[in-house]
Amino acid sequence: MTRPAAASGAVRQGTLRELNLAVVLGRIAAAPRPPSRADVAAATGLTRATVSAVVDDLIAGRLVAESEPAPRAGAGRPARGLVLAGTGPAGLGLEVNVDYLAACVVDLTGRVRHHTVRRADLRPLSPADALARLAALAAAARADAQRQGLTLAGAALAVPGLVDAAGLVRLAPNLGWRDVAVGDLLAAHPPLVDPVPGIPPLVVDNEANLAALGELHADPTGPASFLHVSGEVGIGAGIVLDGALFRGVRGWSGEIGHLPVDPQGRPCRCGGRGCLERYAGQEAVLAAAGLAGADLPADTAAARLADLAAVGDPAARAALAEAGRALGVAVAAVVNLLDLDTVVLGGGYALLTPWLRPPVLAEVSRRVITAGWSPVTVRPSALGPEAAVVGAAGSVVRRIVADPAGWLGRPG
Amino acid sequence: MTRPAAASGAVRQGTLRELNLAVVLGRIAAAPRPPSRADVAAATGLTRATVSAVVDDLIAGRLVAESEPAPRAGAGRPARGLVLAGTGPAGLGLEVNVDYLAACVVDLTGRVRHHTVRRADLRPLSPADALARLAALAAAARADAQRQGLTLAGAALAVPGLVDAAGLVRLAPNLGWRDVAVGDLLAAHPPLVDPVPGIPPLVVDNEANLAALGELHADPTGPASFLHVSGEVGIGAGIVLDGALFRGVRGWSGEIGHLPVDPQGRPCRCGGRGCLERYAGQEAVLAAAGLAGADLPADTAAARLADLAAVGDPAARAALAEAGRALGVAVAAVVNLLDLDTVVLGGGYALLTPWLRPPVLAEVSRRVITAGWSPVTVRPSALGPEAAVVGAAGSVVRRIVADPAGWLGRPG
Repeated sequence: MTRPAAASGAVRQGTLRELNLAVVLGRIAAAPRPPSRADVAAATGLTRATVSAVVDDLIAGRLVAESEPAPRAGAGRPARGLVLAGTGPAGLGLEVNVDYLAACVVDLTGRVRHHTVRRADLRPLSPADALARLAALAAAARADAQRQGLTLAGAALAVPGLVDAAGLVRLAPNLGWRDVAVGDLLAAHPPLVDPVPGIPPLVVDNEANLAALGELHADPTGPASFLHVSGEVGIGAGIVLDGALFRGVRGWSGEIGHLPVDPQGRPCRCGGRGCLERYAGQEAVLAAAGLAGADLPADTAAARLADLAAVGDPAARAALAEAGRALGVAVAAVVNLLDLDTVVLGGGYALLTPWLRPPVLAEVSRRVITAGWSPVTVRPSALGPEAAVVGAAGSVVRRIVADPAGWLGRPG
Repeated sequence: MTRPAAASGAVRQGTLRELNLAVVLGRIAAAPRPPSRADVAAATGLTRATVSAVVDDLIAGRLVAESEPAPRAGAGRPARGLVLAGTGPAGLGLEVNVDYLAACVVDLTGRVRHHTVRRADLRPLSPADALARLAALAAAARADAQRQGLTLAGAALAVPGLVDAAGLVRLAPNLGWRDVAVGDLLAAHPPLVDPVPGIPPLVVDNEANLAALGELHADPTGPASFLHVSGEVGIGAGIVLDGALFRGVRGWSGEIGHLPVDPQGRPCRCGGRGCLERYAGQEAVLAAAGLAGADLPADTAAARLADLAAVGDPAARAALAEAGRALGVAVAAVVNLLDLDTVVLGGGYALLTPWLRPPVLAEVSRRVITAGWSPVTVRPSALGPEAAVVGAAGSVVRRIVADPAGWLGRPG
């Protein structure tokens, strides 16, 4: 328990207030039931007087609110529970995908307070034009947040591609983007948020990463480690290990779409052969189901396939069985390598789980060496295609909770 | 820097001495040059008086020694540097593999003080008989350590199979072991080590995991994240992320040998098809090189292949090219998934790196989506086939350094 501090040296005195703010707010955020000030003191080892002073600061800063007293056994006045406030700072989530733009606002309690999706084929647009449309969506979201008394403290943008540490989109193959400086292009438009010290105004990240984070935080009682596979035009994975996203050495992890499921098979636009995307990506599945060229947005395509499969359409059933088999080969490889016990099917796959799960599990039980005694759960995403944009907004909220001092100390 | 303590609550006062012992010893272990007491104080934020008292305890306990004064620029008496002691506790590493047993002793400085390998085909023996032979090897190692003034404080055993958290070998397919309680069987023999509070007397772990740890600690200046692939009769991987071994949810990570390199290809004993082991495992490579049935131990087989390849033997060259191609398909999948930039070829592969590297790199550059701007390094292991047993002993040493209080407080 004390090792991390030991390894990194002594606690600097100057940060004590910041530390106490973060400890108390973190405890309130993580508590299964609204805790009293005494509960927080007991859980953190801080004195009651310190906790009370810190809680007063957090309430004044609209980060914490007092709930109605909970009924309580035993003597004494029932204590009022502390909860995260839904009236202060909020996070802006944005998404650019192949066939839609989205914006959403999530408050500190995790509630979605605004959500807009605009369908459009983004492929013919330049990055600047696509981002101009996104900026308009963001401005509408900000105005709506302000009407609700919320302050947008930061934004995160999900893109279907590889993003470097500086926020440059190195490659988004299905959008045709290469080396797009999203932040610079958005700087031509009104600011997305009200800047807060310590909170980056805009973080750009891979959609599969943000979707996995959205899923992680949508269910705090769920597993701390899992593989989240987003099925869209491309297939991306977010690898969550011990409650944190695993990004890889340079941030490019999760390219499950290019795992070989048939190394001498169909050529892929990545230059390889037999990549998963060519067998279980949206275009491959639609083609196999006889819907080639239907050019449907991802969620509509999934709904259409689900409808057909539900009424027993043989082509749709066969297409999903084949996609599930390919997905199962890739999932089995991931489980053999990383020993994860939970696989979440997200994006367009969420709706299709009833048909994808059996072939995925069949490949897992055939190919995973520990399958005999270590069962693997395959389940649909709770958020489905909204996971990335909700996860983006949530990532801002968690940054505020982890480091509330900047918000409390902001000018104005 | 202060976040981990913040997240986990306040530092308990009772552990302060233990904490300071670990902080100071950890600093001495990690310092690039032998630090003075003043250097340790500056690096840890502790007072000089505290550091001196702690260092005196560590020296009295044979965990730390003072080196000769280093030449020093500037005024004042040159300070004596502090180094880990090579005269106190040590770790015992043991290995059971398909065709050999091994034992080694590593002192706190990381130096190998004893190393024995006994070649024997272990497959015909029962686990109890194999472990009886190992116990004899361990007793000889312990006697040799005692003669050198070292005390074995803990042991770690490497096995080529899946080990659960309780130390039960669930499955070691190439040895034919299933559900073997190694600790119980070894308990029939004299104790392996002198027990130390807080240090487990015996840890059983997968050989690929321990080999990766051995490699990690053999080169403290090397990358903090890498994939270590051990090529033996089976093929195992150790995944090192940020300086720590990634074990997976249940401890079964790293089964790279069962990644499909041709999902409809050769049947594998795991029940799957086209697993890497069937194309790049020792038996497959020997058969392809025309050496089937030669029944060579892993390091001899690798040396034989290397000799043949070096003189241009066409069958050996072709066998290694094919093995490298298969290995490259699997390595590309790992890099796409985890975004690692370093691949270490260990075990029997270390000697064969000159012939395996080109086809591995060819597959990586064909199949890894970020290969164009994120190069991947493929290099041989520094320790080769000894990595697992040396890594096993080193894992004990690192446990002592991380928590020296038990050693210092031991009875007797």
